[in-house]
Amino acid sequence: MPFLPSLRAGASLLDLFNRFPETSRPLIEFHEALLRGPSPFTGAERELIAAYVSRRNECEYCSNSHAATAAAQLPGGASLVGQVFADPDDAGLSEKLRALLDIADLVRVDGRLVSADVVAKARAAGATDREIHDTVLISAAFCMYNRYVDGLGTAVPDDPGQYAAGAQALVEHGYRAPG
Amino acid sequence: MPFLPSLRAGASLLDLFNRFPETSRPLIEFHEALLRGPSPFTGAERELIAAYVSRRNECEYCSNSHAATAAAQLPGGASLVGQVFADPDDAGLSEKLRALLDIADLVRVDGRLVSADVVAKARAAGATDREIHDTVLISAAFCMYNRYVDGLGTAVPDDPGQYAAGAQALVEHGYRAPG
Repeated sequence: MPFLPSLRAGASLLDLFNRFPETSRPLIEFHEALLRGPSPFTGAERELIAAYVSRRNECEYCSNSHAATAAAQLPGGASLVGQVFADPDDAGLSEKLRALLDIADLVRVDGRLVSADVVAKARAAGATDREIHDTVLISAAFCMYNRYVDGLGTAVPDDPGQYAAGAQALVEHGYRAPG
Repeated sequence: MPFLPSLRAGASLLDLFNRFPETSRPLIEFHEALLRGPSPFTGAERELIAAYVSRRNECEYCSNSHAATAAAQLPGGASLVGQVFADPDDAGLSEKLRALLDIADLVRVDGRLVSADVVAKARAAGATDREIHDTVLISAAFCMYNRYVDGLGTAVPDDPGQYAAGAQALVEHGYRAPG
């Protein structure tokens, strides 16, 4: 149940965006740039980082949504996302992506946990400055989104089909189009 | 020291923004809307929430910057900000703002900690849906900013005068103009 009486019972994140357009409009622009704008990462890789951080933060809505969106774009599909959630060391990820997930997880807990050593490890595995930057910012941004949806009590659909349908719309049309 | 070799030694948040404009441009637009756009809150109140969350997250750069920006706009100045940092119960805040700081602090730790009870307490003290929403989003956003600056190792000026000068520029020109 949403905590704000001006939101309908069962209000979704989309209802929240519609109710508060002054902040949601620029927030969605930022989200689109971060997850779908020009980047050395594929969209699938960015969705996987977003899903992983949300899962580690135990945010059910963001975790399910971005897992579905990553699965829709990754060759390994939902099975790969499930493996990353269960044990990223055993998911057959590239050494680079594995090192970047470690950085994302440290940022998730506290930005001060990132060290020159973990950054050097990612760089040795081939990560560029831009990839390290985008990893830190995606993780930080999902620490915001996770708190935003949970802190206002937005709905968490039970039906996996809803996440899959939303994912397909996101892959095709992006975050600006209503899901 | 910044963790990315492509940033100069002593790189500030502004250097980070300049180096990665694809994400920083929409991020700054969001930040401007959140902290200075139309809202039932004054800019000073929003800066105080931002400073409080950053202080509780122990992010020195954001905490000092937004404390200075709040102090520059609040009648109580730096003394009031210091009291809120030391003990918000003893800072003479309105019951409404005090209840909203409690919500901000819960969101900071984990959005799932927000309950119907703490929201009801804020509403009973006069908080509107929009104020509760903006409080949750400001707290969530600073959980992002704190992680972004700390996770990339940006510089933390020692000189309080630097924060005060930056605060004055922000009050006058906003977040879009380079600080």
